[in-house]
Amino acid sequence: MKLNIAVLPGDGIGPEVTKQAIKALQAIALEFDHSFSFTHAPVGAIAIDETGNPLPEETLDVCEATDAILFGAIGDPKYDNNPDAKVRPEQGLLRLRKSLGLFANIRPVKAYDTLIEKSPLKKDIIQGTDISIYRELTGGIYFGEKFLSEDGNTASDLCLYTKTEIERIAHLAFKAAQTRKNKVTLVDKANVLESSRLWRKVVTEIAKDYPEVTLDFLFVDNAAMQMILNPNQFDVILTENMFGDIISDEASVIGGSIGLLASASVGDKYAMFEPIHGSYPQATGKGIANPIASILSAAMLLDHFDLTEEAAVIRKAVEKSLLLNITTPDLNTEHTVSTSKVGDFIADYISNPN
Amino acid sequence: MKLNIAVLPGDGIGPEVTKQAIKALQAIALEFDHSFSFTHAPVGAIAIDETGNPLPEETLDVCEATDAILFGAIGDPKYDNNPDAKVRPEQGLLRLRKSLGLFANIRPVKAYDTLIEKSPLKKDIIQGTDISIYRELTGGIYFGEKFLSEDGNTASDLCLYTKTEIERIAHLAFKAAQTRKNKVTLVDKANVLESSRLWRKVVTEIAKDYPEVTLDFLFVDNAAMQMILNPNQFDVILTENMFGDIISDEASVIGGSIGLLASASVGDKYAMFEPIHGSYPQATGKGIANPIASILSAAMLLDHFDLTEEAAVIRKAVEKSLLLNITTPDLNTEHTVSTSKVGDFIADYISNPN
Ligand SMILES: [Mg+2]
Ligand SMILES: [Mg+2]
Repeated sequence: MKLNIAVLPGDGIGPEVTKQAIKALQAIALEFDHSFSFTHAPVGAIAIDETGNPLPEETLDVCEATDAILFGAIGDPKYDNNPDAKVRPEQGLLRLRKSLGLFANIRPVKAYDTLIEKSPLKKDIIQGTDISIYRELTGGIYFGEKFLSEDGNTASDLCLYTKTEIERIAHLAFKAAQTRKNKVTLVDKANVLESSRLWRKVVTEIAKDYPEVTLDFLFVDNAAMQMILNPNQFDVILTENMFGDIISDEASVIGGSIGLLASASVGDKYAMFEPIHGSYPQATGKGIANPIASILSAAMLLDHFDLTEEAAVIRKAVEKSLLLNITTPDLNTEHTVSTSKVGDFIADYISNPN
Repeated sequence: MKLNIAVLPGDGIGPEVTKQAIKALQAIALEFDHSFSFTHAPVGAIAIDETGNPLPEETLDVCEATDAILFGAIGDPKYDNNPDAKVRPEQGLLRLRKSLGLFANIRPVKAYDTLIEKSPLKKDIIQGTDISIYRELTGGIYFGEKFLSEDGNTASDLCLYTKTEIERIAHLAFKAAQTRKNKVTLVDKANVLESSRLWRKVVTEIAKDYPEVTLDFLFVDNAAMQMILNPNQFDVILTENMFGDIISDEASVIGGSIGLLASASVGDKYAMFEPIHGSYPQATGKGIANPIASILSAAMLLDHFDLTEEAAVIRKAVEKSLLLNITTPDLNTEHTVSTSKVGDFIADYISNPN
């Protein structure tokens, strides 16, 4: 297969981990006789520094001309901690999702047996956890109208949803549940928010099309508790943008290593794949960033094009590196291996598994 | 001291746990020669059933005429799961907070050594945790303008904050930090939300009045992670209404028992004390509800009037009941004791500690 892949490494550790994902994809291309081409483009703080714009037009053009996007990470403390900054790195990611219509963020959360001891949660709580979180990504309060009064003393943000926005991601979530444990949990705050009541009404309606899937409801504050008390109760979680941000980040730490978690952001036409971790600026350039999440996001990319055998080969190489403890300091304090060496091992193992 | 206390037992297990808190307060009054009077009034689903209004005028009058309010719990599934219900039990609590100007919700989260094994988190993560969460309670998206389009296909909620709303709770949080570990963590989403940027700006300004207190910032999605990874890093958490709802409920489960957590809601004139658990309708009338959170909320009430010795006596009686395992089934599966018997033991121990 021929794939043109846009590479947006972004800020902080983004570039160094994305590089390892490309190594893995190049090894796959060689082994399976595919042709993958990679076009790099700037986004985030680095794009602001270069062009003044966190998502330059050229970057968007590159993304629209390619088959899929491999994304690194975004964010820089010099913007985050300055409340007066007019342009922010995160706007690059938000605009990209909006421009490409990437309305669904999909995050698998799985407890790996090899890493279960690293979880802050007890083994009996976490063991067997296998959740897929469907977070609406282009609506809600992150994109609603913002207001700051002239005197600077009043500020507001609007959380708005339409039926159409809810329907399209709800269908994805129910379809995913059909291939899993046939359960969808809608996380909302319908006892207080009008927008949540719309979610509940629309999703209840759509559930009728999927009679074999059980739909249940959880208020977001209760969901934040249940994720710790009993994560095994969840199969597919469906939720709006901000609740999804909070709940999926919370879920990301229960497995014991955030450095392992990948995500997909999909729309009707485009798809983007990225590690869930941030730009981790303190670690930049030190060779200590864990590249596995980025490498696993490359596996999700392959799955998206039905290259499931290839995706499985990447996952097997990743599991081998975990088993042999060829890992960065977040997983391994005794004989640590650098970001680049973990990437080399995984790419080599893809080419020579024996 | 003479105290007139309004008692609003509310729904579900609210009445049965509040009754135990009153027993404890009556025992204290006898031992310390105080005069506490209790005036009951309906709120929530039970008030809707009786009057059609989740916060009847008479109930508000009672609250305004008393020195403090002892609150039970609110909520009934017949309203929660009906997206078309026009009147909701939770409106009673929201309106009460708003009417009495209870702008700050204070929630202590503490890891009890006797219960640490019950935490879903590992002992080394949770041990020593001692957090006080200051949640803004009368502003933000729960109270912002709501909108539902005529065709029912678009819905929105507005999150609005003013400088004044932020300042008054920020001062309470900094003052609390001065009596603790001199650290305030502001939880917001300032990289995306205009209202969060106002919070960051106003709180940064106020921090200058408290030079010995360290102020740091955490995005809400990161805070949801850090609460699990390292709750010991927190001293005072300051945050807006909805983020506080989610983060404080998440924090409530890390200690191992939500049945032990009390809270205060304070304003310039009034103060209300309540367990943090909900109305737990499935348990109503079965005698299995843990009354300790309600009893500890009575201790917070005493603290509020500087009756610190009396508050300490209640806490000591509670600890004794935990030590002797005279507890409800949530804490004790072998020789369980009923809600009422736990209340009796604690009241008796207050009167006869030997
Ligand atoms: Mg996030
Ligand atoms: Mg709550």
